[in-house]
Amino acid sequence: MTSSGVPEPAPGAGAGEARDETWMRREIAETPEVVARLLDEGRAEVAAAAAAIRGADPAWAMLVARGTSDHAAIHLRYLIETELGIPCGLAAPSVTTIYGAELRWRGGLVIAVSQSGRSPDLVAVVEAARAGGAITIAIANDTASPLVAAADYRIDCRAGQERAVAATKSYVAQLAAGAMLVAELASDKGLADALGRLPTTLDGSLAASLAAIDDNAPIVAEFAASERSIVVSRGYDHATALEIALKLKETGRLFAEGYSAADLSHGPIVLSGPEIPVLAIRPDGRMGPEVDVAIAAAARSGARPWVVGGAETEPGPRTIRLPIDVPDGLAGLAYILPGQLLAETVARRRGYDPDAPPGLQKVTLTR
Amino acid sequence: MTSSGVPEPAPGAGAGEARDETWMRREIAETPEVVARLLDEGRAEVAAAAAAIRGADPAWAMLVARGTSDHAAIHLRYLIETELGIPCGLAAPSVTTIYGAELRWRGGLVIAVSQSGRSPDLVAVVEAARAGGAITIAIANDTASPLVAAADYRIDCRAGQERAVAATKSYVAQLAAGAMLVAELASDKGLADALGRLPTTLDGSLAASLAAIDDNAPIVAEFAASERSIVVSRGYDHATALEIALKLKETGRLFAEGYSAADLSHGPIVLSGPEIPVLAIRPDGRMGPEVDVAIAAAARSGARPWVVGGAETEPGPRTIRLPIDVPDGLAGLAYILPGQLLAETVARRRGYDPDAPPGLQKVTLTR
Repeated sequence: MTSSGVPEPAPGAGAGEARDETWMRREIAETPEVVARLLDEGRAEVAAAAAAIRGADPAWAMLVARGTSDHAAIHLRYLIETELGIPCGLAAPSVTTIYGAELRWRGGLVIAVSQSGRSPDLVAVVEAARAGGAITIAIANDTASPLVAAADYRIDCRAGQERAVAATKSYVAQLAAGAMLVAELASDKGLADALGRLPTTLDGSLAASLAAIDDNAPIVAEFAASERSIVVSRGYDHATALEIALKLKETGRLFAEGYSAADLSHGPIVLSGPEIPVLAIRPDGRMGPEVDVAIAAAARSGARPWVVGGAETEPGPRTIRLPIDVPDGLAGLAYILPGQLLAETVARRRGYDPDAPPGLQKVTLTR
Repeated sequence: MTSSGVPEPAPGAGAGEARDETWMRREIAETPEVVARLLDEGRAEVAAAAAAIRGADPAWAMLVARGTSDHAAIHLRYLIETELGIPCGLAAPSVTTIYGAELRWRGGLVIAVSQSGRSPDLVAVVEAARAGGAITIAIANDTASPLVAAADYRIDCRAGQERAVAATKSYVAQLAAGAMLVAELASDKGLADALGRLPTTLDGSLAASLAAIDDNAPIVAEFAASERSIVVSRGYDHATALEIALKLKETGRLFAEGYSAADLSHGPIVLSGPEIPVLAIRPDGRMGPEVDVAIAAAARSGARPWVVGGAETEPGPRTIRLPIDVPDGLAGLAYILPGQLLAETVARRRGYDPDAPPGLQKVTLTR
C-alpha cells in the first residue's frame, strides 16, 4: 500500500449509522474497475514472469503470504495445481526466519503475495529462495516495497490506495493477478477467455450483492446478533470462506470461523446449532455437491444456512445468487463480494468502524 | 483404528461428574507407554522408509491428512523443512479427488498421516502420487487400512485401540513416528538422542499436566465458562495450538480458535479481550520470544493469558510448566498433554461426554 497506514476519518462509519459510505464499502465497489485495470495494464508484467517460469520449468511451487494475502495464496495454490499440475504448498516463514533452516530452493518457484510488501518474514523468505536458486515472483500492491525489490519478477496489483484497514479490492486484485499468471502458463484457453469476461461478471455480482446485503437485510441482523458464526466452502472457495470469516472477525469482532467442508466433518461440525449463523459458499460445478453435504450437516444441527452461489443455486429467501459465468478458478473473485459487504455491514450494525478496527494496522510487520 | 467406531459407554462421562475415568483421559495417560513402544517396535519400518527416501532424494515433500492428523502433518512439515531442508507443503486433496487434476508427482515425497487410514480422499491422493512416480509413505494406526495398502512404505503408530472419538494418544504417536523418520534421515544427532529421552520427558510432563489440570483447576473453570477462546503459539507448536483448539471444539463444544502468533497480529487479535480465555504454548528457545509478543498483545487487550511452557517459563498461578529436555521439534509431543487434559475436563464441566461428541464418528470419510 502507498497508504501511510493512518486512514482518514470515514464518513458513515459511526456506530449504528446506516449510510453506505465507509471506505471499506467504497473500496469493495471499486473492485470491478480495479480488476479491469489490472487485466489491461498488467499484461507485460505477467508475460515476463510467465516466460521466466516457462524457462525455469519448476518442479514445485511455494507461496508465501500472511493474513488476507494468505487466502489469496490458498486460491492461487488450487489454480497452480489444477491448471499447471505443479505441486504447490504454502510456506511456513518461521522455518527460515526463526529456526534458521536452509531449504533446498533450487528448482522451485516461490511466489510471495502481499498488499504492503513490507513484512520482514516474507521478504526474508523471498531473499533466501532467490539466493538459493528458486525463481521468485512478488504479487504486491506497492512496487516500491522491499518485497518487490527482493523478487526476480513482480506483478503490481494496481488496486490503488486502500484506506480501510480491512483489505477488500486489493484481495480480489491479488486473486486476479494470480489467475492472469496461471492463464498465461496454462493450456486451458477457457481460463484466458473467462478472464476477459471478469469485469462484467464482477459488475453483475457486485450489483446482486449490494441488492442482497444492505443495512436492513435479515442476514446482517443474524450475523450481527451472534458472537459466533461459521463460513464454509471447499476447494477454490475454501479461500473465500476463510477470507469472509477473517473480515467478519477483523471488522465485526465476532468469532467467525472459516472451514473447508471436508474439515468441518472432522470435528468442528459439533459447533453448529440453531443459534449459530452459517454462511456457505456453494460454487457451481463439481465442487457444489461437496458443499451441499456441509449445508445439509449444518441444517441437521438446527442451523438455517445462508448460501452464496451461482446459476445452480435456487433463488430463495436465504440465498444470494450471483451471475457467475466464469470457471471454478475465477468464481471466487465474485463470491467474496457479498461476504465483504456482509462484514462491513455487520460491523456498523454492531457499532464498530469497519475502516479502523482497534489495534490493527494496515501494514503488519512479523518476523 | 481397529475400533468399530462405536465407543463403549465411558464410565465417568456423565454430565458434571468429576471422576477421572473417561476413555479420553485414560488414553491421554497411555501416551508415554505408546511412544516408548513405537520407539522400540517401529525401528525397522522407519529404517526401511528412510532408506527409500535417501535413495530417491526427493526435491520436495507433500503431506496429506485431515483433522487431528492434519495437525500432526503441520508439525512434521516443520521437522522436514528444518531438519532435512526439503521444501514441504500440505496437500489439498480436492485438487485430485474433485477437480481431477494430474500433478507432476515424480521426484516428490508424499507422506499421508491418518488414524484410520480409511478416508477416500487420502487414499486417492496417495494412489495418484504413487502412480505418478512419487515415493509414498503412510503413517497410520491401522495397518489393515486401504491407505497403508496404497503406499510404498508404512509406519504403524502402534497406539492401540482408541475408544474416545477425540484422538489423543494416536496424535502423539503420529508426531513421534514423523520425528523418528526425520531423525533417521537427519544429520542432527541431538534429535536422535532426544528421541530416546522422550518417554521419560512425557512421563514427567504427564504428571505435571495431571497436577495442573483437574476438575477444580481455575483454568478449567475459565474455559468452561466461555463460549469462545483463543489458543496461540508459533512454529512447531502452531500444530499444538491448532490441535488443542480442535479438542476444545470437538469435546467442549466451544469456539476455540488456534492461531499462529504471526497470524494473530494480522487480524484475529481484535477478538481478544477480558472475557476471552487465552492459552499460549510458549516453547523454550528461539521461538519463545515470538510467542511472548502474542501473550503481550493479548494482555494489552485485557485478557489474562494462561501459559504452557518449559524451563524458561517462570512458575506462577497462570503457568503450566513442563520438564522439557528435548529440542523444539519434539517438545510439542509434551506440550499437547495439558491441552488434551484441559479439553477433556472442560467437556465434562460443560456437561458433555468427551468420549462421544454428538454427530462425530471415529472414522471420517471425505471424498
